[in-house]
Amino acid sequence: MKEKLIKEIEQILKTDQVLVGEKVKERYCHIWEMDKPLLAKAVFFPKTTQEVSDILAICNKHHQPVVVHGGLTNLVGSTETNPEEVVICMEKMNAIEELDASSRTITVQAGVILESIHQAVEEEDLLFPMTFGAKGSAQIGGVIATNAGGLRVFRYGMTRNLILGLEAVLADGTVISSMKKIIKDNSGYDLKQLFIGSEGTLGVITKAVLRLQQKPKSRNSAFVALNDFDRVVAFLKFMDAGLAGTLSGYELLWEQNFIAMTSPNTDIPKPLPDGYKYYVLLETLGSDYEKDHNRLEELLEEALTEGMVLDATIAQSGQHLELFWKIREDVDVLVSQCNNVQNYDVSLPLGEIGNYVDHVFKELEQMPEVENYFAHGHVADGNIHFLVGKNKSSRELSHRVNTIIYGPIENLAGSVSAEHGIGIDKKPYLNLCRSSEELCLMGTIKYALDPKGILNRNKIFDYSK
Amino acid sequence: MKEKLIKEIEQILKTDQVLVGEKVKERYCHIWEMDKPLLAKAVFFPKTTQEVSDILAICNKHHQPVVVHGGLTNLVGSTETNPEEVVICMEKMNAIEELDASSRTITVQAGVILESIHQAVEEEDLLFPMTFGAKGSAQIGGVIATNAGGLRVFRYGMTRNLILGLEAVLADGTVISSMKKIIKDNSGYDLKQLFIGSEGTLGVITKAVLRLQQKPKSRNSAFVALNDFDRVVAFLKFMDAGLAGTLSGYELLWEQNFIAMTSPNTDIPKPLPDGYKYYVLLETLGSDYEKDHNRLEELLEEALTEGMVLDATIAQSGQHLELFWKIREDVDVLVSQCNNVQNYDVSLPLGEIGNYVDHVFKELEQMPEVENYFAHGHVADGNIHFLVGKNKSSRELSHRVNTIIYGPIENLAGSVSAEHGIGIDKKPYLNLCRSSEELCLMGTIKYALDPKGILNRNKIFDYSK
Repeated sequence: MKEKLIKEIEQILKTDQVLVGEKVKERYCHIWEMDKPLLAKAVFFPKTTQEVSDILAICNKHHQPVVVHGGLTNLVGSTETNPEEVVICMEKMNAIEELDASSRTITVQAGVILESIHQAVEEEDLLFPMTFGAKGSAQIGGVIATNAGGLRVFRYGMTRNLILGLEAVLADGTVISSMKKIIKDNSGYDLKQLFIGSEGTLGVITKAVLRLQQKPKSRNSAFVALNDFDRVVAFLKFMDAGLAGTLSGYELLWEQNFIAMTSPNTDIPKPLPDGYKYYVLLETLGSDYEKDHNRLEELLEEALTEGMVLDATIAQSGQHLELFWKIREDVDVLVSQCNNVQNYDVSLPLGEIGNYVDHVFKELEQMPEVENYFAHGHVADGNIHFLVGKNKSSRELSHRVNTIIYGPIENLAGSVSAEHGIGIDKKPYLNLCRSSEELCLMGTIKYALDPKGILNRNKIFDYSK
Repeated sequence: MKEKLIKEIEQILKTDQVLVGEKVKERYCHIWEMDKPLLAKAVFFPKTTQEVSDILAICNKHHQPVVVHGGLTNLVGSTETNPEEVVICMEKMNAIEELDASSRTITVQAGVILESIHQAVEEEDLLFPMTFGAKGSAQIGGVIATNAGGLRVFRYGMTRNLILGLEAVLADGTVISSMKKIIKDNSGYDLKQLFIGSEGTLGVITKAVLRLQQKPKSRNSAFVALNDFDRVVAFLKFMDAGLAGTLSGYELLWEQNFIAMTSPNTDIPKPLPDGYKYYVLLETLGSDYEKDHNRLEELLEEALTEGMVLDATIAQSGQHLELFWKIREDVDVLVSQCNNVQNYDVSLPLGEIGNYVDHVFKELEQMPEVENYFAHGHVADGNIHFLVGKNKSSRELSHRVNTIIYGPIENLAGSVSAEHGIGIDKKPYLNLCRSSEELCLMGTIKYALDPKGILNRNKIFDYSK
């Protein structure tokens, strides 16, 4: 027999907007685990903000926990469910409502795929700079709810910096709408900040106004080799000053990573020889290919002459450049070389990264269960990703690897998550980077906005009144 | 007889940290009105975060309203007091705690003057990009509490974008400290966003870690004339694309403003003739003076040839450039020409600004009490300032001028404050740009963090449980 809650919601939605029973199991929680059936009482597919509001009002009345599903590309379990939860799936709210080239904004519903936004704005010579590997599946609502990072944070900022207007629905169904195209707004509290990056625990994002940038006319990239982390920092500062505002990416690969990505069986030619400790891949987005290329060349020559860097090479064509970026972006190549892989996205003050990674490598080296490990990252933003392969899968072993990687974070005043969020996977380590007073204040905010704790319950932190 | 509250606080502070009685009247609420004596029960001068915490805990116990004083340069009355309030003055917490050139951060106490930060970082070839007219008096705590804007928002963002770590004390004395130097952090709610821009109503900011940029090596500026607002927008997009990341300022002056600022009695030579409707002052911050200058010249020639702009001139020296910027920045020249001046900082979608300002001018023209009016602004950020001079001072007249300027904001989805905030002066107009649901949620947040409403009570919105 159907629950009262489901019946009430069925009255406000059409038949094709509700899944119950066995149909629910045809869906899933993670795009990475599509073979694992979804556990939930029901899945609802609202088509309007009003429907999201009505569904939440009913769920709130019944103390019914709700999980929101976007593109399901989250890496820390934020979209996981249990059989007692219901799912609100945003895929039917997938319209681009307006592209305003004059104000350089795009107005989108939460279910729009990130890549569709890229394509739409490109036709107007504009750019939505947020981009990352899962762009073909990730929905903008999830991108915002998790404050996604990616490859161009150094120049354009995290998702938080790219949102002008936002509409979100609170647990009780109240619609908080501020769909504005304005860049500056100091009229009272900036409420959208509450919903950006809170992983669906404070409200359901339904729409957003995104800020667009002028599309750059030229792109150049170079690979550079160094052996000393202090010089990685010095070279960043040198290039940042020398390239003024055109430097858009400064990615670092540690030696193991570079070797694995350019080994003979990857078909990717080595831009530089093996044997250095660090490889920097940098990118400029400018306005004139020839001039930007020459400027980059001049600066690299100066850095080589002064001994700041040990080797350097510039991509000589668009195709060549794409090969450079495959070395950084084709993370699947690394994943395929790891058994029982664990991945990380720690954040640290830039100056601390060199010693920290040396220390982590040394510790991993001493663990017989660890088969291999790789490190790369958005180093200019202080963000390092690790991949660790192990000879078996066990919670105890995972925890030991976590302890090696997260352990030093507290003393170094870093974060266990630069980009991916906390979800459920990182909850045990949250207290390494947030004080008890901060965690208590998070609870206060959660309770103020969602007193019954129905929204993504027990994600980020455990909910208790 | 002294109140119990004052006695309790006197026990935790030294004699030179407390003012009561007549001494209080030697201080003031606004740097613009230093002849108006401060009305308050007492002024406290904490030297440490712990002292701020202790003062607040005592005030909270006694339901004692508190106003925080920084540099007192606020324009909307956020620092005003009444005789029943006490003041926490941050001027003794004025240490620069650390300048970390490697991580490109500076760690400061809330009472540090903005200009002192500029000077400190310049020695390391670094830049803290937040700057505005009152930089010699404004304290960084106030800059953060009001999410200040200013002249370089287009390239570097508002204050919100420049803060990495923050420490703030809640109404009950709880210290929320996250003094981190990291750029990316998705470990739970980004609590610092609550304190940035909330005008001291949610917590007392005590310290911050600021993100620094590499200091640009070259600066170029040009004045450009146009007659059509659509071309102001088209020219912005053209320059933004052509200058890639080096465009750092795109300021607009309407004709009246340009004429007044370059009239014979100002001693500023006219960079371009009078007679155009719009004058754009643009700035590039780059890495090579000669090349940047040439690039700017090329683009301006192209814009002239294509008829996008009607006239243009580039500053030929540093001194020349300073004269250009005096025309935009020396707002005192305009103020001195206005009687009973009212000033504004509205925010609008870029595409709406041309028609909106035409409409406002037409309405002001029809008011016999309005003697003169000027408009200029950070147009690339959608932010326009008005100055309106009137033949008399009256609340009724002020309200009529406000109605002309704020009236269209609601329909155009703009904001009554891009930069200055709401304070007490703009409270009657807040509902033109924030919905009742938003105002209600602001109240929920205020109540959750400061249930007794002791912090900057009745600023932004009236406090009622």
